[in-house]
Amino acid sequence: MNLANLPTPSLILDRPILKRNIAAMAEALSIHRVTLRPHLKTAKSIDVARMVLGEGGGPITVSTLAEAEYFAAHGIGDILYAVGITPEKLDQVAKLNAAGADVAVITDDVDAAAAIRAHAASIRALIEIDTGEGRAGVLPEDPALEAIAETLGPRLAGVMTHAGHSYAAHDRAAIAVVAEAERAGVVRAAERLKAAGRMVAIVSMGSSPTALAASSYAGITEVRAGVYMFGDLFQAAIGTHGPEDIAVTVLASVIGRRPERHQLLIDAGAIALSKDRSTEATQHDYGFGLVRDLAGAESFGAAIVRRAYQEHGVVACDSARPFPALKVGDKVRVVPNHVCLTAAAHDRYFVTDDGVEVARVWPRVNGW
Amino acid sequence: MNLANLPTPSLILDRPILKRNIAAMAEALSIHRVTLRPHLKTAKSIDVARMVLGEGGGPITVSTLAEAEYFAAHGIGDILYAVGITPEKLDQVAKLNAAGADVAVITDDVDAAAAIRAHAASIRALIEIDTGEGRAGVLPEDPALEAIAETLGPRLAGVMTHAGHSYAAHDRAAIAVVAEAERAGVVRAAERLKAAGRMVAIVSMGSSPTALAASSYAGITEVRAGVYMFGDLFQAAIGTHGPEDIAVTVLASVIGRRPERHQLLIDAGAIALSKDRSTEATQHDYGFGLVRDLAGAESFGAAIVRRAYQEHGVVACDSARPFPALKVGDKVRVVPNHVCLTAAAHDRYFVTDDGVEVARVWPRVNGW
Repeated sequence: MNLANLPTPSLILDRPILKRNIAAMAEALSIHRVTLRPHLKTAKSIDVARMVLGEGGGPITVSTLAEAEYFAAHGIGDILYAVGITPEKLDQVAKLNAAGADVAVITDDVDAAAAIRAHAASIRALIEIDTGEGRAGVLPEDPALEAIAETLGPRLAGVMTHAGHSYAAHDRAAIAVVAEAERAGVVRAAERLKAAGRMVAIVSMGSSPTALAASSYAGITEVRAGVYMFGDLFQAAIGTHGPEDIAVTVLASVIGRRPERHQLLIDAGAIALSKDRSTEATQHDYGFGLVRDLAGAESFGAAIVRRAYQEHGVVACDSARPFPALKVGDKVRVVPNHVCLTAAAHDRYFVTDDGVEVARVWPRVNGW
Repeated sequence: MNLANLPTPSLILDRPILKRNIAAMAEALSIHRVTLRPHLKTAKSIDVARMVLGEGGGPITVSTLAEAEYFAAHGIGDILYAVGITPEKLDQVAKLNAAGADVAVITDDVDAAAAIRAHAASIRALIEIDTGEGRAGVLPEDPALEAIAETLGPRLAGVMTHAGHSYAAHDRAAIAVVAEAERAGVVRAAERLKAAGRMVAIVSMGSSPTALAASSYAGITEVRAGVYMFGDLFQAAIGTHGPEDIAVTVLASVIGRRPERHQLLIDAGAIALSKDRSTEATQHDYGFGLVRDLAGAESFGAAIVRRAYQEHGVVACDSARPFPALKVGDKVRVVPNHVCLTAAAHDRYFVTDDGVEVARVWPRVNGW
């Protein structure tokens, strides 16, 4: 089937671009001799995971237990569930591990650590470290670090951090500073625990911006990153991804024309694109997405989805160019602001190898 | 099962509140002797539809062909697909109608009208009228109205409009003004067509704010509204829904505590809540949602989800109150900003009759 004949809205995945992005990350990290634990919260697809991992059993990172269950069912064993665990969720982790997986959890809470220790299943846990993001985790120098480790006892598998504040650093130099703080902070936490005689097998850092920005990975055993596989307008805006290397777009149909206002209406709105406005604070505000033509070229100039209703997107076309000669029913492709959220509304990828034909359909594991 | 034992995040639907909202709309419209064509883009559930319609076969409004297919399969025949049709989508409509449904489409485009007319199936079409929103539709006085009607010929089934700009009117008086413009505009379009000798069976208006705000429905045959069934913080902010009448919330677990910053971390983030920020421009900015306790009471005061990551929500607690005595794993309920988008991330409702027990599980029809 041709892309032009797909129902709309649909999620399109360009496999050659995906392949290139995966290879670039692997090559960059191989120089530093550090293991990649890809985060599959963006892709949520075993087919994408296999492109990153080959036939290996991991390691991977996930953001939901639904992902953990899905990837475990597809033969991936070494899984880090990288959202703070609750005592109630331990039974589900234990069940996956009893069936052959090895799902590790994270915590920054003494009570949750006690529940992990008390659970009949020997579930491995990493302590989450806050290296500046201020979302979750204990500070590297926090006395709570030792208390949590003591509580976990033999369940302690390591330390991890996520420098999500790298997304606020809008150039490579600023991101490199964040990456070094991320590395130094999580390594410092590991050293404190080791100095107290504890085993710290895993020292894990990562976000897509910082994964490639660190000048040193000294003391780090693994790096986590996910969005780099696809890229998006926000990653392009902060300079961590080329705009020509964005692998995922939303195919949409024109459903209305307003030449006098330089506007088009498309059938991709707030659900199909998400209401993420990440690029708002960057140099180029792409609204709810940038509209390219069916072939993926920017032939409409700065055609941007400026308003997003549930199933309608209002595209403001480039007033410096002639109004696009598109009819109702013609197809366009919308490049997403934040691909993790855009993809989350779609249950499958229509995968293309040549930008014209749909080569295959890959399912996604959404929800919880 | 008790709500407290559900996995998180989960979508909770309070049936008594839903019932009350449905009854209030039915009663208000019965006074005006106008038919309600409920919009099921918010609920996306046959169980909710049955509460509105009883055992009837419609009429309903839908926003996707997936909804049309689902409701038709559940025995609802009279369906208005209220997003501008493309020629490519007509075959799917024809297929549903051949199987016994009666799906009507909308258009504001002469070429699309020609495709409707040319299609072998006799698909009914309404002309979309722009009564001030500026999204889709032809203006009531636009010469294109007559051209589209002429092109549709015997397929013309009526006219419809959606005063979506009512959402920018932040009090009842301002909404009433929009409602009257909506009514007068679509009736004017109908009158022009009738004066030219055309049959205009349906004259349809509606948005949840305006549905109950019009002082007159003269010339209108039906009203469309959907979000009124559930309500949300935005509807409450503009005064069209009581904050105590919001029927849908997201159950979440506490996954982190930051008493020193007056913050909690929950496992409902940008996917489970959506990144909709509708209340930003209203008197009370509720961030990504308002956090109530498990029983649905506002015992935490102004506890608001201020940041939303993919699976993390950062809750800023009311600094004027003691930090909530919640532990990691304790449950809270998040009232959504914009329920249509929040619900869209969830594949089912956990329905409660008493706010404590899960009485049943109702599926939703997401996607396209």
